[in-house]
Amino acid sequence: MRLVTVRSAEGTAAAVETTDGVRVVRDADGLAFRDVGDLLRSGPGWKDLAAKATGRPVQGLGLARPILEPRAIVCVGLNYRTHVLEMGRELPAVPTLFSKLARALTDPDVAIAMPPATTSERVDYEAELAVVIGAGGRDIPKERAWDAVAGLTLANDVTLRDWQKRSLQWFAGKSWEALTPIGPAMVTLDEVPDLGSREIVCRVNGEVRQRAPISDLIFDVPTLVADLSRVVALQPGDLILTGTTGGVGEGMKPPKYLQPGDVVEISLDGIGTLTNRFSRNA
Amino acid sequence: MRLVTVRSAEGTAAAVETTDGVRVVRDADGLAFRDVGDLLRSGPGWKDLAAKATGRPVQGLGLARPILEPRAIVCVGLNYRTHVLEMGRELPAVPTLFSKLARALTDPDVAIAMPPATTSERVDYEAELAVVIGAGGRDIPKERAWDAVAGLTLANDVTLRDWQKRSLQWFAGKSWEALTPIGPAMVTLDEVPDLGSREIVCRVNGEVRQRAPISDLIFDVPTLVADLSRVVALQPGDLILTGTTGGVGEGMKPPKYLQPGDVVEISLDGIGTLTNRFSRNA
Repeated sequence: MRLVTVRSAEGTAAAVETTDGVRVVRDADGLAFRDVGDLLRSGPGWKDLAAKATGRPVQGLGLARPILEPRAIVCVGLNYRTHVLEMGRELPAVPTLFSKLARALTDPDVAIAMPPATTSERVDYEAELAVVIGAGGRDIPKERAWDAVAGLTLANDVTLRDWQKRSLQWFAGKSWEALTPIGPAMVTLDEVPDLGSREIVCRVNGEVRQRAPISDLIFDVPTLVADLSRVVALQPGDLILTGTTGGVGEGMKPPKYLQPGDVVEISLDGIGTLTNRFSRNA
Repeated sequence: MRLVTVRSAEGTAAAVETTDGVRVVRDADGLAFRDVGDLLRSGPGWKDLAAKATGRPVQGLGLARPILEPRAIVCVGLNYRTHVLEMGRELPAVPTLFSKLARALTDPDVAIAMPPATTSERVDYEAELAVVIGAGGRDIPKERAWDAVAGLTLANDVTLRDWQKRSLQWFAGKSWEALTPIGPAMVTLDEVPDLGSREIVCRVNGEVRQRAPISDLIFDVPTLVADLSRVVALQPGDLILTGTTGGVGEGMKPPKYLQPGDVVEISLDGIGTLTNRFSRNA
């Protein structure tokens, strides 16, 4: 099942996406949900409600990110060997976790306005698999971690390298307003069998810059869910951005940062493609 | 003006605190606000609504934290020279920012359950002045930063030192579930004239462990508001935890971490005292 948050004249709504278009999901009273996040937060019956979305499919609606305002966005740094090496870091023994504000997120297909060059000249892409929490919970054993997950989506963890590295903590370069697109859809796990062998790919203006199978993750999804759930209780609609593989602009010789007009596409077979054009604020 | 979030049989409510007790704040329709955060988010008239809370004062209600679920909690590390030195770090040239999840917060006066000793044996206190954003905004000039602020409160940025230092990013030791108390009240700026000369004090079981005037901040409140507002737009009810001064348990020789039964009191004249007893989960 593919769940999306669609935009319409009345606002946004959670919907099921098929090849015929999208069907808005409604609760027992016929009311729509503002986004996939609100649907997930409605409780364990979210999947049944989505399955019952059988109205006439609508076409041509724009997409917002599946989860508009996650209550937690936790990112994982240094989680692919090739990226650890290109950043000149040591291989980590435990996950490197940090959090991002909900206001750092933005949507599929929108033009992303980078800060002026006087503010940052080192805007970089990071293709990432993102985990959407469903049931959630605290102290989740690794063996049951997938039961806590509602589905998967994609993220471009856009980073201002100069701001990321200005102090010991990466927040300022990682949580810039409306710079992190998420989407296009949240897919349930049955849509991506053999996840480990599927490749996440990042293209800039059509050129492949990053490509790695998900099995390259140093800490896999169950390990990340188990580890993070020791720190806090995971809640429906939370996002875990699982980290990026080698090939970021900062790691190229010479470095190649995003420029106005660049189009970044992040793909994973079974989820789809997250596409954004970049522009520059004056 | 002192604003608090009080607990009653019906839930929580924003209230004005005076020496006679508290008066619940109501909107034009007579409805209460769930917390000081919702009051601030109601718009620029929040101060007038609070001034109009003239009902009979109620006594004996328990306090919740002023902002129940801030949309952003941004912390500042390494912001007092004495603490930078005791942690063996270098003096920073720019603020060291990181974020914390809303679910890491807890309330004044509650017993705080530390994780089991098998999970962390290095639970530490950090007394901090916390800034509550009012009007907020983006790219706020330092000279107008105080206009973006609604008031001030206190925080104990309780930290699991072992989890903080397990990787390059401090999140896992800084965002532990329900470990960071905030309060007791949000006071408006007129309650704390000459803020710089006022001392923040942390006592453990009555013994003074931390004490410094707010003027010791390496990056003062206007600098922090201006800096953070370059990264993201600040919104009503956001919290900035401004950092801690020397005297944390980790810096003592030998280190002295929090133990079950310890009572930590964080005080600043004009705001009050944030008190919590610590216990240990089995």
